[in-house]
Amino acid sequence: METNKRIFKLRKWMKENDVDSIVVTDPANQFYLSGFKALIYSRPILLIIDCNETSFIIPKLEERHARTNAEVDNLYVYYEHPDADNENKTPTELLNHHLAKRHNQGAKIALELAYAPSRLVEAVKDIGYSLADVSESIMEMRYIKDAQEIHIMKEAGNLVGVAVSESMASAAPGVTELEIDAKGNTALFTTAANQFPDATIDLTVMTPSGPTRSVMPHVFSNTRRLQEGDVVIHTRQVGLNGYRAELERTFIVGKCSEIQKKAFEAVVKAQETALNMVKPGITAKEIDLAARKVLKEYGFEKYAIHRVGHAIGISPHEHPYLRFDNSLRLEEGMAFCIEPGIYIPYVGGFRHSDTVIVTADGFQLITDYPRDLVNLTI
Amino acid sequence: METNKRIFKLRKWMKENDVDSIVVTDPANQFYLSGFKALIYSRPILLIIDCNETSFIIPKLEERHARTNAEVDNLYVYYEHPDADNENKTPTELLNHHLAKRHNQGAKIALELAYAPSRLVEAVKDIGYSLADVSESIMEMRYIKDAQEIHIMKEAGNLVGVAVSESMASAAPGVTELEIDAKGNTALFTTAANQFPDATIDLTVMTPSGPTRSVMPHVFSNTRRLQEGDVVIHTRQVGLNGYRAELERTFIVGKCSEIQKKAFEAVVKAQETALNMVKPGITAKEIDLAARKVLKEYGFEKYAIHRVGHAIGISPHEHPYLRFDNSLRLEEGMAFCIEPGIYIPYVGGFRHSDTVIVTADGFQLITDYPRDLVNLTI
Repeated sequence: METNKRIFKLRKWMKENDVDSIVVTDPANQFYLSGFKALIYSRPILLIIDCNETSFIIPKLEERHARTNAEVDNLYVYYEHPDADNENKTPTELLNHHLAKRHNQGAKIALELAYAPSRLVEAVKDIGYSLADVSESIMEMRYIKDAQEIHIMKEAGNLVGVAVSESMASAAPGVTELEIDAKGNTALFTTAANQFPDATIDLTVMTPSGPTRSVMPHVFSNTRRLQEGDVVIHTRQVGLNGYRAELERTFIVGKCSEIQKKAFEAVVKAQETALNMVKPGITAKEIDLAARKVLKEYGFEKYAIHRVGHAIGISPHEHPYLRFDNSLRLEEGMAFCIEPGIYIPYVGGFRHSDTVIVTADGFQLITDYPRDLVNLTI
Repeated sequence: METNKRIFKLRKWMKENDVDSIVVTDPANQFYLSGFKALIYSRPILLIIDCNETSFIIPKLEERHARTNAEVDNLYVYYEHPDADNENKTPTELLNHHLAKRHNQGAKIALELAYAPSRLVEAVKDIGYSLADVSESIMEMRYIKDAQEIHIMKEAGNLVGVAVSESMASAAPGVTELEIDAKGNTALFTTAANQFPDATIDLTVMTPSGPTRSVMPHVFSNTRRLQEGDVVIHTRQVGLNGYRAELERTFIVGKCSEIQKKAFEAVVKAQETALNMVKPGITAKEIDLAARKVLKEYGFEKYAIHRVGHAIGISPHEHPYLRFDNSLRLEEGMAFCIEPGIYIPYVGGFRHSDTVIVTADGFQLITDYPRDLVNLTI
């Protein structure tokens, strides 16, 4: 990963803002800046960046993992057994010690104040440091993906297509939401094993079905069995070596009612409209409002209860968001999921999502699966 | 869920500590106190508890989900489309509005300062409220599981056993870590669908294999294929309707080296020793130190780089931790994973984990699978 370039950029920001050290607490930002991501965070992990060095404070049981993956200068380890060298300092004590060795009181320490726990921030403040906020700066650095990030995301786009195809093939009346998920997962893991030896796979999948579940945009899949007349939203992200692509399709089980047909047509058209607007220079809100306009023409405006899209990369949802109130202009190298959705009580939820990369003169789809009602009726 | 009892207890704490409102930000605590858990948190969710009411501040797209699941008095919704009633207040603005309607300046507001983002806490402080910390109080409430929680965890214990058995049956030279995971997942989803219609399943699984991967206690499974001579740790948690059980087994592929055999024997004996000590009144550290003593007798002390266990329930790892420095006494109704582990460079990692409930006079295992080398050689 191009962590050197990112650290260089961050150090420029530090200089411009008179910041002496940055303490990064958000795991996604830690991964972006170091290549290292732990799996469980019941033990705190801190990444510290100053103008000379980058350092991790990590629990002993992550040491080997970090030595393999983390592109940093120093690892400081804390222990949870009695006989360690460092007298069982807590992570916060190690942080204080680290900062005190490098900076005088009054130095300026930046943290992600939108993420970092209040207690940790107060501990830094209590030593006598002044605080700065690096939340938005790192967030904005992540807006534009570099060539390597885009390359991995395209591979993730292919993999999510394999999983969605297999899940769709398994969908039938009587099959449960969780079983539909599992079929795609198995295909995904087999394909990934063949194509990407030694890769890491992240998985997000849910398949809410029927009139009372598909209207909830985010719910865990459960053991409900598909029934004739259901609307179902099969929702998937696949992460490959830390970078994600998203592909979602709405499908109908058996015969479609008139309103289902109309709603299906509306979201297909809204997504198509939004997709075709993606290019450098357009604002996020133009895309959101254009998709909403289509849904309004169908009379479904009030059911369009979420933004039309979001960026994607390391995190399942990233800024910038394609929202009605976001005037940010799209730039080449940004990556978005385009997913207008409507959720009609007692009828069903309707949403397709595809992932696109903004190119010099438009966009490139990195996910693919049929979007039309004929192909999406089982 | 017995959320009423929990809110009652929390209100007692509020009274004792002159707290006027609690703002709960940790999703696990929100679930514990309301029965509601969202799936993705890119949109903030806040639970507010005062002496009269409980309220959620939630994004519009979670409203239906929350109306179905959340045991609270009020839902306040924020929107991400242009024409909503509440003039597109942000969650923090809604929170300020909510608090201002109920409390004068100088009121005391408690948050989980160990978890809540600094920016949110500062926003509450900036209005003129004084702050209190409810982190430890909610954490301690969750120590002892009630009858309903224990019942669900036992069912989760059965399910994790189904998944581990199936994954173990699929393990063979040439099979990838991810494929081993997928086999167990498929069995899990099928069984869960039959036994628990309308249940929610959480899944954590990893199967690091071989001399360089099994020595990392927490890494995502990848596409590495099992080889003759590998040590492998198959690690699983299953959550059923929000409550988890953990079952982990170390196994050997083919012929075992002398040191592998000795290490395997050491962790089996250490786990057995720790398990048999579990009962009300014993301290967490007595258990940790006893298991360490066994590992020391085998000469493996320096490879025992993590605590011997942790509580489990809603979160994958919960307090109390079975650590060398924790003097807390175990009580009936606590639930622990007992998992002494050693990680020997270029040899492999060794760890079994089982989940137990502390009973009136000892413990009850809620997970089961053979622990001996004969059964765990494939």
